Amino acid sequence: MANKQNSTAILLMHCPDQPGIIAVVTDFINVNGGNIIYLDQHVDRVENIFFMRIEWELAAFVVPKDKIEDYFSTLYAAKYQIYFRLYFNDYVPRMAVFVSRRSHCIYDLLARYTAGEWNVKIPVIISNHPDLAEVGKRFDIDFHVFPITKENKQEQEKAEIKMLRQYGVDFIVLARYMQIVSEDFIRQYPNRIINIHHSFLPAFIGAKPYHAAFERGVKLIGATSHYVTTDLDAGPIIEQDIARISHKDTVEVLIHKGQDLEKIVLSRGVEKHIRRKVLTYKNKTVIFN
Amino acid sequence: MANKQNSTAILLMHCPDQPGIIAVVTDFINVNGGNIIYLDQHVDRVENIFFMRIEWELAAFVVPKDKIEDYFSTLYAAKYQIYFRLYFNDYVPRMAVFVSRRSHCIYDLLARYTAGEWNVKIPVIISNHPDLAEVGKRFDIDFHVFPITKENKQEQEKAEIKMLRQYGVDFIVLARYMQIVSEDFIRQYPNRIINIHHSFLPAFIGAKPYHAAFERGVKLIGATSHYVTTDLDAGPIIEQDIARISHKDTVEVLIHKGQDLEKIVLSRGVEKHIRRKVLTYKNKTVIFN
Amino acid sequence: MANKQNSTAILLMHCPDQPGIIAVVTDFINVNGGNIIYLDQHVDRVENIFFMRIEWELAAFVVPKDKIEDYFSTLYAAKYQIYFRLYFNDYVPRMAVFVSRRSHCIYDLLARYTAGEWNVKIPVIISNHPDLAEVGKRFDIDFHVFPITKENKQEQEKAEIKMLRQYGVDFIVLARYMQIVSEDFIRQYPNRIINIHHSFLPAFIGAKPYHAAFERGVKLIGATSHYVTTDLDAGPIIEQDIARISHKDTVEVLIHKGQDLEKIVLSRGVEKHIRRKVLTYKNKTVIFN
Amino acid sequence: MANKQNSTAILLMHCPDQPGIIAVVTDFINVNGGNIIYLDQHVDRVENIFFMRIEWELAAFVVPKDKIEDYFSTLYAAKYQIYFRLYFNDYVPRMAVFVSRRSHCIYDLLARYTAGEWNVKIPVIISNHPDLAEVGKRFDIDFHVFPITKENKQEQEKAEIKMLRQYGVDFIVLARYMQIVSEDFIRQYPNRIINIHHSFLPAFIGAKPYHAAFERGVKLIGATSHYVTTDLDAGPIIEQDIARISHKDTVEVLIHKGQDLEKIVLSRGVEKHIRRKVLTYKNKTVIFN
Repeated sequence: MANKQNSTAILLMHCPDQPGIIAVVTDFINVNGGNIIYLDQHVDRVENIFFMRIEWELAAFVVPKDKIEDYFSTLYAAKYQIYFRLYFNDYVPRMAVFVSRRSHCIYDLLARYTAGEWNVKIPVIISNHPDLAEVGKRFDIDFHVFPITKENKQEQEKAEIKMLRQYGVDFIVLARYMQIVSEDFIRQYPNRIINIHHSFLPAFIGAKPYHAAFERGVKLIGATSHYVTTDLDAGPIIEQDIARISHKDTVEVLIHKGQDLEKIVLSRGVEKHIRRKVLTYKNKTVIFN
Repeated sequence: MANKQNSTAILLMHCPDQPGIIAVVTDFINVNGGNIIYLDQHVDRVENIFFMRIEWELAAFVVPKDKIEDYFSTLYAAKYQIYFRLYFNDYVPRMAVFVSRRSHCIYDLLARYTAGEWNVKIPVIISNHPDLAEVGKRFDIDFHVFPITKENKQEQEKAEIKMLRQYGVDFIVLARYMQIVSEDFIRQYPNRIINIHHSFLPAFIGAKPYHAAFERGVKLIGATSHYVTTDLDAGPIIEQDIARISHKDTVEVLIHKGQDLEKIVLSRGVEKHIRRKVLTYKNKTVIFN
Repeated sequence: MANKQNSTAILLMHCPDQPGIIAVVTDFINVNGGNIIYLDQHVDRVENIFFMRIEWELAAFVVPKDKIEDYFSTLYAAKYQIYFRLYFNDYVPRMAVFVSRRSHCIYDLLARYTAGEWNVKIPVIISNHPDLAEVGKRFDIDFHVFPITKENKQEQEKAEIKMLRQYGVDFIVLARYMQIVSEDFIRQYPNRIINIHHSFLPAFIGAKPYHAAFERGVKLIGATSHYVTTDLDAGPIIEQDIARISHKDTVEVLIHKGQDLEKIVLSRGVEKHIRRKVLTYKNKTVIFN
Repeated sequence: MANKQNSTAILLMHCPDQPGIIAVVTDFINVNGGNIIYLDQHVDRVENIFFMRIEWELAAFVVPKDKIEDYFSTLYAAKYQIYFRLYFNDYVPRMAVFVSRRSHCIYDLLARYTAGEWNVKIPVIISNHPDLAEVGKRFDIDFHVFPITKENKQEQEKAEIKMLRQYGVDFIVLARYMQIVSEDFIRQYPNRIINIHHSFLPAFIGAKPYHAAFERGVKLIGATSHYVTTDLDAGPIIEQDIARISHKDTVEVLIHKGQDLEKIVLSRGVEKHIRRKVLTYKNKTVIFN
């Protein structure tokens, strides 16, 4: 979707809300020859925080690309207490996918990847089971198995982290990876691990949400993609959706219907992350248009 | 929606699943001159229970209306372990509405009622606050206030039950009645009190669900209509729906958006109840088409 | 929803897209002591048009309220080719409702109106049939009947326009008013007549859309609220929604299910209009958050 | 989802509605030792037609599998004017997929196929362009290109039909096959060609529906899976769904958002067809539960 021809910078920022803050930032870009092609902002009036995503073309921008962060930091960040991240549309982020035995989410990710929908590189798939090795082969992506037991978990995760670094991975997608990731692992990738949970959180946290949904007799099932934090299924929510069910649907039907939800909700979450549309603040997300 | 011209009987039943059970019941009706105009059935293969709703015209039915229950009971219910309820489309059930201060649900119910959409009579509105007395006046429906305190709750509920009997009330709709109903009260109307809860249960049980949804940063809000049981917000679910929200929505916006959900989800639940489309089994509902 | 305590100005504008245009307008407000509490903007990159809605508190704004339009016009509008409208949150717009025989939409509007949800005054209901006179009485709103025939249409519409002026009406809502309004009438209220059409336009334009939907065997029905233009059912769309149906649903069921859609979709459209969230451009709408 | 362990027969039928018709058919099965595991029926009271899908286990059924059609035909079909089709769950239908250049639909089909979700065999993919040859290779499915021009269309379609016969194809899925199929071709596969159209039909029939949707300024986009008939985009609808869009969405975004709709709506339609849940009657479908 992104315009690949023109190099752009993307600034995601938040700061205490204050009069004229939009003008300050847009002026910095305009005055220095940047052409703003995107601006979306939001003011949280409860927390009194201003959020903005702004993107501009660099062709005529007088500040060199590798100095922008420094300049913006020096000139504005301290003065206005701005917390920001700067991205460039010509950098291709590297994403690892973790899977277990079910293939619907990974296939959905790879179908988009292969079609060139996303500005991303997937160098590696990691699994705790060998079942989906074939998927890696089909799409020419390295596939590594790290079987996890209570005893070897710490060690295996260390090996995974080492491998993720070797592959230069920027963020991780848990595509129905049925294994809880340790706090140590999560701390390596803060707000950079995206999980899909097969319920409309906060309902049915933890294992077997479809069984719990069946037991409760709900008329809707859901799925939630979220950043992984050290609290189980409690991280910042990126995307949710639901499907209607009825008393006729067995647990097996819920699982089957849920798969379509899971894969779409996960892929939408991943897409927003790749496109730098997500800003996290205090366990919640701001999702720019 | 119901055909008012022809008198019909409606049988809601469940029994252990067994070969030929549909034929047994349809034969009883056909052989005796009943014209079946509706049949919907469901087999729960986990519990091994057969559920059916069947409706037939009585014009040429040889069993007198007031003997059908007796005959069906004697001839089939014991033999096949059938639990059943029999209704007639020409009986107008009497519904009481309980309210507090917010009017959106009661107006939605009364708009449908006044337009003649439902085969129901609403003889009385009961409230724990006087705020909506005007609504009763507008629609010419008796409006009674029973202020509830910790001290007088038992006594007030007794007075309410007495009044409900005087009005010949068959079932009760809690239209955003912001007061927990006691177990004693509930036991008087088993599966005959319909509540609207302003979340997609089982998420956000209890008070202030929109505040909790805001805190959690969900991307969907919901509403649930359910029968009231002695477990808070845990009774059989009749209907649920959701609306999409975003980080831009304050608690006030959630409350505002939620009102449309609440009124529609409550009215749909009430309509299904009035039309005898709901069968309750083990804290879950079977909703016939 | 609107903050009634502080007086605010709302500017809706569009102009050819040009660098720094946001800064120009926000500067005008900031420099003159206005506190911006809302800003949403959009750039149409096909038409190359910039759209913005901006709202600011007037308490400390140095330009007198009745001079803002003049100042903004002189200082900026000509220079930047800005087309704009200025509103004040303390003006209560006056809305007329047109109905025929079905009451679900008018009740939904009046329930919200009566609950004080909207910053609007409804001084008059106009109908081509006497059927809903009772609704006017219930809510203490003047109700006038203008029966329309081929012969008297021109004359009756003239009388209606005269009456609308007497009531000081700013905009009109056709709440299932089953009568085509003439081009002359429409020209009196450009983009100020909101209609509800009972299909997902542009499918099933014209009369009897539910019958047409049934005939076609669609699996969804819809409703569309839109501004009325001189092309039948072809004006700018404000809001649409759908409901799922099945082969089991007769035309009567479609009509019944459709009513919930119609009233919600109409009320959402009206609310957006009242809250000055809609900007019309070339037969399409920009809907601000 | 189907139970593969027990051999079952599936009867899809319709006939003029008549008293006792359910009992007639269920008796035939019960009396002869069949165990009914599924029954869903529908009466169209406008056309006065009775529809039923019934499935029973064959283990103890006394009529030999290859005689059931004959017996049912002789004993009942003529007498009750029943039109029926008989299927067996242990026959694996053979499906051909037609594609052009976009891969999202074919990947969604193949992901489900590879995961073993469907009781189907896909022996061949046919395309009018070579672009997706790689997909065939990845999933080890024969891929054949038949470039179509005005001049060679008749001849190429003949070659396609010959090939489809060689592959023993039972039905065809047009997975964004951007080429109109001729009437001659369609007549070879009546109600056995499933297409995905990228709009909520009947809106935006024909080419470029997303462009048309953008032009019209709709707030929803849709997708429709339907059987192909000789009227363009006018065949019996199996499944539809929509997604919400806004003024911010360009045609490119509509196309992108629409892809998720298209693939899910097509796969749902295909699944219903494979599971014998669709009965076609007079250009409309009955979809059993």
